[in-house]
Amino acid sequence: MTTRWLTPKEQRAWRAYIAATLLLEDAIDRQLQQEAGMPHLYYSILAHLSELPEHRLRMTDLAGKLKITRSRLTYAVTRLEKDGLLRREDCRWDKRGSVAVLTDDGMAVLRRTAPGHVETVRTALFDQLTEEQVEQLEEICTGVARALEGEGERPAADEVPWRRRSSPSCS
Amino acid sequence: MTTRWLTPKEQRAWRAYIAATLLLEDAIDRQLQQEAGMPHLYYSILAHLSELPEHRLRMTDLAGKLKITRSRLTYAVTRLEKDGLLRREDCRWDKRGSVAVLTDDGMAVLRRTAPGHVETVRTALFDQLTEEQVEQLEEICTGVARALEGEGERPAADEVPWRRRSSPSCS
Repeated sequence: MTTRWLTPKEQRAWRAYIAATLLLEDAIDRQLQQEAGMPHLYYSILAHLSELPEHRLRMTDLAGKLKITRSRLTYAVTRLEKDGLLRREDCRWDKRGSVAVLTDDGMAVLRRTAPGHVETVRTALFDQLTEEQVEQLEEICTGVARALEGEGERPAADEVPWRRRSSPSCS
Repeated sequence: MTTRWLTPKEQRAWRAYIAATLLLEDAIDRQLQQEAGMPHLYYSILAHLSELPEHRLRMTDLAGKLKITRSRLTYAVTRLEKDGLLRREDCRWDKRGSVAVLTDDGMAVLRRTAPGHVETVRTALFDQLTEEQVEQLEEICTGVARALEGEGERPAADEVPWRRRSSPSCS
């Protein structure tokens, strides 16, 4: 098969994408490390749980929400549990399953850290975009994520990170 | 100061951005791990060096090109050197400086791996975008990267990863 190399225009877009995503992630990680002593992923775990009615979610579903592998999630959750910011509970319906629950301390850290985090996201990203560009970014990213999650024309459902190992069936 | 929380529209764009960037990086890392036994960052180091006339660059400049900290670069370069894919040479003009040089083996790995890598980037990203969206993505990402590198209205030059520790002056 002939390699479909990138055109000069695509190469420019790809390099700009790599630079922007690395710099943005670095800025966000740095702010969260300074203010909460944790990287972006750990903050996202707490933030996701805080949005749910009972502040709890099955580990497998949490990995899916965060678009990461379960082993990466388990590592992060173990650290957060050690710091008392969340706890793990056995699943009521499935002995193999496990549920992550945000603690009051975790909620307090979130409340204290959220304003600084949002300010970083706004300054680094949204302050640089026009209203129209915000819509363009959403459309581009939604399309890319959907294709990689196998909801597009080229299904790849078994290739997403959180389905890479067998999934407990507790909910 | 009142927190400038994200609007619902910005929240949607932010979540789509997080999902797309995580899934894309995962797909790229997975392909490179399978075909070259290395993550995306390591491949990028080799690729950057391969584009230069003598396949060599000062470590500090390489960190700047890759938008990462020098300690992260040093870690990756040590691994790549151990595998014989690049070597480090002392800097001719500065005893503290060090230069990374791509080896013939490194070039061979790149030549072998590049077609599969480009195919992944194309399938996961560019095949999902219209011509217009490629331009939009470049414009959005260039603006964001520029602002974070301090070339925009809000200088933050000392905050970029590769300037976080004192820089050797060899070139």
